[in-house]
Amino acid sequence: MKIILDGMGGDNAPAAIVEGAVLASKEMEHQILIIGDQELINAELDKYKYNSEKISVVHATQAISNDEAPVRAVRSKKDSSIVKGINMVKNGEGDIFVSAGSTGALLAGGLFILGRIQGIDRPALATIYPIVGGIPSLMVDAGANTDCKPNNLLEFGMMGNIYMQKVLKRDNPRVGLVNVGTEAAKGSTLTKAAYEMLEKSNMNFIGNVEAREVPKGICDVIVTDGFTGNVILKLTEGLAWNILQVIKKKFTEGAKAKLGAALLIDKLRGFKKEFDYSEYGGAPILGVKGPVVKMHGSSNANAVKNTILKGIPYVEENVVDIIQNSVLEIEEITLSEHEKI
Amino acid sequence: MKIILDGMGGDNAPAAIVEGAVLASKEMEHQILIIGDQELINAELDKYKYNSEKISVVHATQAISNDEAPVRAVRSKKDSSIVKGINMVKNGEGDIFVSAGSTGALLAGGLFILGRIQGIDRPALATIYPIVGGIPSLMVDAGANTDCKPNNLLEFGMMGNIYMQKVLKRDNPRVGLVNVGTEAAKGSTLTKAAYEMLEKSNMNFIGNVEAREVPKGICDVIVTDGFTGNVILKLTEGLAWNILQVIKKKFTEGAKAKLGAALLIDKLRGFKKEFDYSEYGGAPILGVKGPVVKMHGSSNANAVKNTILKGIPYVEENVVDIIQNSVLEIEEITLSEHEKI
Repeated sequence: MKIILDGMGGDNAPAAIVEGAVLASKEMEHQILIIGDQELINAELDKYKYNSEKISVVHATQAISNDEAPVRAVRSKKDSSIVKGINMVKNGEGDIFVSAGSTGALLAGGLFILGRIQGIDRPALATIYPIVGGIPSLMVDAGANTDCKPNNLLEFGMMGNIYMQKVLKRDNPRVGLVNVGTEAAKGSTLTKAAYEMLEKSNMNFIGNVEAREVPKGICDVIVTDGFTGNVILKLTEGLAWNILQVIKKKFTEGAKAKLGAALLIDKLRGFKKEFDYSEYGGAPILGVKGPVVKMHGSSNANAVKNTILKGIPYVEENVVDIIQNSVLEIEEITLSEHEKI
Repeated sequence: MKIILDGMGGDNAPAAIVEGAVLASKEMEHQILIIGDQELINAELDKYKYNSEKISVVHATQAISNDEAPVRAVRSKKDSSIVKGINMVKNGEGDIFVSAGSTGALLAGGLFILGRIQGIDRPALATIYPIVGGIPSLMVDAGANTDCKPNNLLEFGMMGNIYMQKVLKRDNPRVGLVNVGTEAAKGSTLTKAAYEMLEKSNMNFIGNVEAREVPKGICDVIVTDGFTGNVILKLTEGLAWNILQVIKKKFTEGAKAKLGAALLIDKLRGFKKEFDYSEYGGAPILGVKGPVVKMHGSSNANAVKNTILKGIPYVEENVVDIIQNSVLEIEEITLSEHEKI
């Protein structure tokens, strides 16, 4: 297997990317091709002992930054690490593309270069959702599609269900639809119609889940439109940050509190780790004709390593093909719902 | 002023409701009319010393529970505390209706009995949103309208802006639109169009706010559709609960941690209070022709007291009339946007 790694994406590129590649290559037999400015990348590689048969560099003269308009950047920067890397997956020169770069550019690149899987109306971004005190869930869509139709939510559920089983290795995952109430008749026009479709599927659909239950890990696959998914992710991040800041402040007010906090320092550190879910890998763009995985922009070497390693089952388990094969069920359900109208 | 109080709504009715009324009447000159089963309410009242000229009971033979279909309940239970209470506001026998009962029934009652303010397309529920370590924001809509049009979000902003100034007494409130990015061009079809409208208003519109910033108190009035508002509220509740549970668990693992936690017990208790925002009153249903306020179902006597007291400026400042007078601006903006299309 050849894993194409974007050497130019993310806040810590290329240093953390290269270090992550070196770490990953020690734990697997597959090849890593780091794509980007070869001078910069080789300078980083020179800092480590590594097997040069397993890690090589592919030169790309351009890079796409987070500030660029994604569609325009993908259209114009043909020799950027993202465009070149995704093209290598398309041409069979690589099996998967992993990047900490611009989410928008990765989505646009996935759509324009690889294309949608036939029958999938809207590819989606699937991210790990942290469950404090538990194992994380997978949320689809995390922000690729702000306006959705009911069949899109069905697709998100089906694709997330497959990824959860094949890559995150959880059997019979519980699939839940984010809604304002648990009853079938609750919700917006979108969620009511999506409920009907999800219920007809062969998945382990547990029905509507209220946002209150999501952080408690009520389901393995959280199905939602990209607007709500983005709100859930960012609110979780902001609220957890704020709570921890206030705790930190309170725990350093006065000598008694400081002593108490000193005794609890291990526990407090352990708590922060609850939000570090990098061991579960990055966020796949599901629904395009090839594996593309987005890592967090601030990924460190360890997160890069983990994302590379999680890419192996993504490729070996033929997730893209399995999604392709599930399209028939999606189409049948969508059609039967349209006939009702 | 006559404040009509639902004696039958909420988990702790009528005990906490009656106690709250007694507490409130000691801090103000206005009259409170408690509506509900007079035998039950009088039995509670008998437990306290109170001024019988300031607190009286209005008998109602029925009550609406949270399990009932709201529209049907409001249509059929003419002698319920909610229907009778809202009718008293309509007929001028009372100035405001305060209830810890079914949100759905209060919304339906507000719409059917009082009616929409002319020019307001969609009345909304405005709730206090807790800011850990800061003063709370006001979120409109918190769940009354799961499907919204852009002009509804403009209405929510205008109404929340007025309530924040007149009742919560915050000058020049910062009004923000929940969105997936801060740039004007970001978002769903709904939020992009709503942004255009909000920007044309005379409010202190600070633009799009990401969900990450909401718990940090980035704006005073949080504008969003009722689906997203419901998700934000419930996710905040669920996540905070979960984080506190895990902290509690970690802090009682081992003797060292237990000692540390004992030293921090005051701080931990103080932290819990950050989520108690009952001093700011209940959630008004904005956009109907009379003041109706929903309290949390689990309100204790203190929360009841605070909600009653916050009802005074709601009535005295003529919030309903001011909303009525702002309708022209809403209509002008909505019209100018329609003309563009």
